[in-house]
Amino acid sequence: MKFSSKIEKCGLSPMRKFAPYAAEAVKKGKKVYHLNIGQPDIATPEAYFEAVKNFSQPVLAYAPSDGVPEMIDAVVNYYGKIDAPITNKQVLITTGGSEALQIALSCILDEGDEIIIPEPFYPNYSTFVTLTGATIRPVTTKPEEGYKFAVRERIKACINEHTRAILFTNPGNPTGTILTEEELKLMADIAKEHDLFIIGDEVYREFVYGGEKLMSLLQLEGYEDNVVVIDSVSKRFSACGARIGCVITRNKELYNHAMKWCQGRLCASTIDQVASAALYSVGPEYFDAVRKEYCARKDTLVEGLKKIPGVVYSEPKGAFYVMAALPVDDAEKFQIWMLEEFDDNGDTLMFTPAESFYKTPHTGVNEIRMAYVINEKDITRCMELLKKGIEAYLEAN
Amino acid sequence: MKFSSKIEKCGLSPMRKFAPYAAEAVKKGKKVYHLNIGQPDIATPEAYFEAVKNFSQPVLAYAPSDGVPEMIDAVVNYYGKIDAPITNKQVLITTGGSEALQIALSCILDEGDEIIIPEPFYPNYSTFVTLTGATIRPVTTKPEEGYKFAVRERIKACINEHTRAILFTNPGNPTGTILTEEELKLMADIAKEHDLFIIGDEVYREFVYGGEKLMSLLQLEGYEDNVVVIDSVSKRFSACGARIGCVITRNKELYNHAMKWCQGRLCASTIDQVASAALYSVGPEYFDAVRKEYCARKDTLVEGLKKIPGVVYSEPKGAFYVMAALPVDDAEKFQIWMLEEFDDNGDTLMFTPAESFYKTPHTGVNEIRMAYVINEKDITRCMELLKKGIEAYLEAN
Repeated sequence: MKFSSKIEKCGLSPMRKFAPYAAEAVKKGKKVYHLNIGQPDIATPEAYFEAVKNFSQPVLAYAPSDGVPEMIDAVVNYYGKIDAPITNKQVLITTGGSEALQIALSCILDEGDEIIIPEPFYPNYSTFVTLTGATIRPVTTKPEEGYKFAVRERIKACINEHTRAILFTNPGNPTGTILTEEELKLMADIAKEHDLFIIGDEVYREFVYGGEKLMSLLQLEGYEDNVVVIDSVSKRFSACGARIGCVITRNKELYNHAMKWCQGRLCASTIDQVASAALYSVGPEYFDAVRKEYCARKDTLVEGLKKIPGVVYSEPKGAFYVMAALPVDDAEKFQIWMLEEFDDNGDTLMFTPAESFYKTPHTGVNEIRMAYVINEKDITRCMELLKKGIEAYLEAN
Repeated sequence: MKFSSKIEKCGLSPMRKFAPYAAEAVKKGKKVYHLNIGQPDIATPEAYFEAVKNFSQPVLAYAPSDGVPEMIDAVVNYYGKIDAPITNKQVLITTGGSEALQIALSCILDEGDEIIIPEPFYPNYSTFVTLTGATIRPVTTKPEEGYKFAVRERIKACINEHTRAILFTNPGNPTGTILTEEELKLMADIAKEHDLFIIGDEVYREFVYGGEKLMSLLQLEGYEDNVVVIDSVSKRFSACGARIGCVITRNKELYNHAMKWCQGRLCASTIDQVASAALYSVGPEYFDAVRKEYCARKDTLVEGLKKIPGVVYSEPKGAFYVMAALPVDDAEKFQIWMLEEFDDNGDTLMFTPAESFYKTPHTGVNEIRMAYVINEKDITRCMELLKKGIEAYLEAN
């Protein structure tokens, strides 16, 4: 049987591919600590479950293809409050930020096209781009430079006649970087000058730790045709399982094309949309508390990292990940070794080997991504395990 | 700005594109009867809402990418009961039958490939195929022949070196046809002989009215590599808004490719999966009652159609749609006229003009699809409106 050449080019998720080794380790009686998945342990606001319980229509009917009105309104109001006015004909509610990305990329990219993405990047970007027939043109960034990519010459060097768009996560997954207002404007300027779409994946917007102002692409004026924003309730409200996100654009033509996809798949889940709309009633005190919690976890993780000789990292300013280069030959090999050969009092550790966060071959081989979505005590233990693991691995290999 | 050539080839849904005319008619005080959308009015079983209310995890977390275990088990058990044994590594839970189709088609089809689909077909097939870069090779069927397509010579005439798969809905949307065991086996034989995938969209499986046995592609032995089945809770349990479906295949390679898509989009909605699993506890008396109700509605609609001179149709044997050729020049023109110019005591009617159910140009121009998902009294009124509408239209034009 013959398969699509596009799906053959795709890989399995690096966040999930070591699960069988972890299962084997658990079978042998080891306790595995997880820093590999961005699944927060923060409770989902009660407003969600109340809305679910209060849903009382006897027929669970299709929602409108663009979304249920209360969810669209919730998104419009949210952006209105951060000085990014949008209308309800500029928002399409999607099945998570994932579908929002699929829709935006499908509407823009053709076979042979290119999209500029700073690397390291969220690996599922690669799956979605590959399925359109296009390819990623990476802008390689480094921890030593704070993963900076918004530099005119560096971006312009990646633009050619095949380039259609620029995509980045802000705050960054996996790097934790955030763009300054000037950097964001620079990126938008370059996109406008070259007639490119600029796609901002802003799902981690609430999680900024240094008191800096985080700007949305939608706050910039004069880039209405270029800007696309991907958003989601998953991380913002610790509601990953709701699978509710949205794609936002003021470009009417893009909106109309995206609507074709939306009508094709009929709608996003009705109950999850109604309940997700209710999440937007949560006040700023919720975000303050969550931000404080994540910030403390980040500090704990970074404290632990500092104690491990030879580790290179850049302290994250947002989101809830840390990238680190380890003093090992190969992070995948090290991960498997940690699960198969290592334990400290029965404990071992999972992280995400980061090679597949890079498009450039043989890059990031000794790097890992860690998600600080577990409590501080466990993070402290994780850093001990990482330190002891590296020592034992270097001795054994 | 440049868009994907694929999305530019897609169209808006014919089920939804006349909505603005309907809104205008309502504004003028008309009552619009809807036969255009396949949204059943049957109550969703209480089991769904109970499961939703009983969901008690404090964190609404991601589900596994292949699906929550209880939903996968529910599907495996369901197929076990109809003598179509499958394992839980042959099922991927998806966001509706729509995503199941997107996944199957994306894994199989490349730019320039062809897929054979009998026409008239569900128009969203066209969107999903077009987005892969492939094209539909239609097998044109006719009401006078009962929309029969499972004829060896006719299918073989469509096969060439670009053909990768055959796709059909069984029971048929929009035709209401069902394949006999011999026809189903014939289609599978042809697929096997030519190394093609055979994709059965079986979401209407419960709705068969003549007492005939409906066979699933998964009941056939010896076609493990070829068969793919698309399923969904939407129509079966009147739970369209849950957006829970699945793709089923015993082809391990296809399953592994499909898993890449599933991991890329992370998972289907957690609560909707848990609640959809509960739907499978509904007993056969539920389906008997629903089947009886739809059958009575079909009979009422067909009785009404019989009274309209010049209408050609084939009485459906399954699903809940009737296709009909009307004695008008153009069904789209007629639909707009019905909404703008016509009323009978303030009432008018919506159906779905069926030209976009055909790939072959200028085919089905005077045909419509009607969904009998409303009560018998309203259906009777709809047929009166159709009869009077046609008479008035013919007089006026």
